[in-house]
Amino acid sequence: MPNISEKGIQMPASPIRKLTPFADQAKRAGKKVYHLNIGQPDIATPVGMLDAIKNIDFDVWAYTSSEGTLTYRTKLAEYYNKLGYNITPEDILVTVGGSEAITIAMQTCVNEGDEIIIPEPFYANYNGFACMSNVVVKPILSHIENGFALPAISEFEKLITDKTKAIIICNPNNPTGYLYSEEELDALKALCLKYDLFLFSDEAYREFCYDGRTFISPMHLEGLDENVVIMDTVSKRYSACGARLGCLITKNKSVITSALKFAQARLSPGMVEQIAGTAAVDTPDSYFEEVNKEYTLRRDTLVNRLNAIEGAFCPNPGGAFYVVARLPIDDADVFCQWMLETFDLNGGTVMMAPATGFYSTPGSGKQEVRMAYVLNTADLDSAMNCLEVALQQYPGRTI
Amino acid sequence: MPNISEKGIQMPASPIRKLTPFADQAKRAGKKVYHLNIGQPDIATPVGMLDAIKNIDFDVWAYTSSEGTLTYRTKLAEYYNKLGYNITPEDILVTVGGSEAITIAMQTCVNEGDEIIIPEPFYANYNGFACMSNVVVKPILSHIENGFALPAISEFEKLITDKTKAIIICNPNNPTGYLYSEEELDALKALCLKYDLFLFSDEAYREFCYDGRTFISPMHLEGLDENVVIMDTVSKRYSACGARLGCLITKNKSVITSALKFAQARLSPGMVEQIAGTAAVDTPDSYFEEVNKEYTLRRDTLVNRLNAIEGAFCPNPGGAFYVVARLPIDDADVFCQWMLETFDLNGGTVMMAPATGFYSTPGSGKQEVRMAYVLNTADLDSAMNCLEVALQQYPGRTI
Repeated sequence: MPNISEKGIQMPASPIRKLTPFADQAKRAGKKVYHLNIGQPDIATPVGMLDAIKNIDFDVWAYTSSEGTLTYRTKLAEYYNKLGYNITPEDILVTVGGSEAITIAMQTCVNEGDEIIIPEPFYANYNGFACMSNVVVKPILSHIENGFALPAISEFEKLITDKTKAIIICNPNNPTGYLYSEEELDALKALCLKYDLFLFSDEAYREFCYDGRTFISPMHLEGLDENVVIMDTVSKRYSACGARLGCLITKNKSVITSALKFAQARLSPGMVEQIAGTAAVDTPDSYFEEVNKEYTLRRDTLVNRLNAIEGAFCPNPGGAFYVVARLPIDDADVFCQWMLETFDLNGGTVMMAPATGFYSTPGSGKQEVRMAYVLNTADLDSAMNCLEVALQQYPGRTI
Repeated sequence: MPNISEKGIQMPASPIRKLTPFADQAKRAGKKVYHLNIGQPDIATPVGMLDAIKNIDFDVWAYTSSEGTLTYRTKLAEYYNKLGYNITPEDILVTVGGSEAITIAMQTCVNEGDEIIIPEPFYANYNGFACMSNVVVKPILSHIENGFALPAISEFEKLITDKTKAIIICNPNNPTGYLYSEEELDALKALCLKYDLFLFSDEAYREFCYDGRTFISPMHLEGLDENVVIMDTVSKRYSACGARLGCLITKNKSVITSALKFAQARLSPGMVEQIAGTAAVDTPDSYFEEVNKEYTLRRDTLVNRLNAIEGAFCPNPGGAFYVVARLPIDDADVFCQWMLETFDLNGGTVMMAPATGFYSTPGSGKQEVRMAYVLNTADLDSAMNCLEVALQQYPGRTI
């Protein structure tokens, strides 16, 4: 029997899915499981986007051009230019989800063995994409005490070597919900210019900023055009995770030209998705206003309930729909599994993602969990009732 | 300005797209261009598949499981078992097009620096996927004289080293249309077992076999379960290239387990596509009968016209919808560009793919072109009228 490859062995399994068998088992045992573990919103996809699918009008489901249809890229440019990105359709490569934007950005910009600095905790799949591209992730700790703000630039500088090629930020952040400030982005800009680094900006959660705060992209910064690569997706913006429609944006001509070669190898992004994505750009502002009102309510519910628990601490994040909370527990992995395997309150329990999966520094995040507020406030309240009682019963509680 | 990566430089551009600017220029100059250059069929997608898209009935366009929905995999297993593959839904990983099945197969099964043997001419994008995975392609020449039959096993054995990890066959073949016989597959089986090699079988054109010939898959061969990885797509089967829906199939548990980790990193294949793909399995046999009748007619038209040209030779392929023809020309790249740039017959000209793009042995295929018979017979006849006259006028003609 031929052996699988070294990479096939090393490739990390998704930490988010590790507990799925226990959740399945809990459900088979009749438990009601509140899923706060994954970023699959319950929000309805805009009607205009779904109607575009239902109204397709073609006989041959054909390839589109590898970079995406000009129609869709033109519409996307319109969307981004409303945000002040000042781009053309030629600066956009349509990708199969944000995932492909990340892999293409890494393969195009970073040599094998070279390093990317990422503030941690970070989106766990960056590890998988880095493994696929033989890129080394250098984590830099951010801290729950200050809400996971950008680590000091001096900390970045300690990590920079001649192998450092890029920094990834996810803004607003998954998993912390932290929204970077203009000052933080300016500091990153100076750093990237000083050391000639790419700044990869994962903006999947751009639309979800709360408390009247404004989203700032590296695309808004002057003089950084050659360094910035945006990795984006419609998944969260329009609650269309199953569309697998994203894009890579850069004004760096060498990057976009090279990225196109990777896109040509896989021929084309999806055609129906691009039709739907084109319609989605016309989603009325009221859609986002309602969604953000709902998410703000949920965040407030979740954060208030968490901070009312003795020994727990949850910063109040400025964006996305996640929180990372510290709980009075010995080991988040053990606790989250125990919640599914052993605990229930009136037949209900909560599935959370242990934060350890989002750190690559060993031992970090052992008392932290990520929760996605993708349930309505009533369910969130029920979930917090469970959590509250669970923390009184869990054998590994620390208070 | 930060530099792009070495891989970004080395990544091969699609040879098929090299001539696109000249085709665009020809069209701007008012020429009618007969596109025989790419495998985008003009055949209508099955109505049932398109109806499934139009009839979607969900509010949230959500992720599916990374391996694909159980509904779709169950239906796919039904399709493959009708063909005698004897598989379960657990043997299937749904991928984003056949392209992703190829990249995942390579990354899962082949170590970096290890070698894959591929009979050439071969599907040009294998080079791109190999580049992405740091896998070395070892081409083995097949010859137009015998219709591009499988090279002698002794020729394979000359190439096998301790770095050889897999063989790729594309059957029926793109670009040659060659349909491998049971004897050829048996010989490959013995070879793979003797040297412990994976056999990657790209079966994108499985449905298109002519003259009453039967398609044989390595999946039909006894005792090869641990070695075979099928890379498939709905693109050609249902004329649904824009769906980006494929799959990887293997009974090798280590391979499917590892492949799933790559799939988890990118989260999910498209949801709407899987709904459409599920419906597509119920496409009536009459659809394929009609399509194959049409393709047979086209193939016969094209092959007859080509062989009637003095100094030209075109084998009569058993499958797919391509031919590779030898023309009385000095240089296929120059000729194909000249056809677009300089030549016209009553305002018409033909776009073909120089076969050089499908060979990796330097100098091979210089007198050969690939043509996809994706136009109706009247258009094919017009295209051949152009070609006939062009070959009398082309300055680099060899007779």
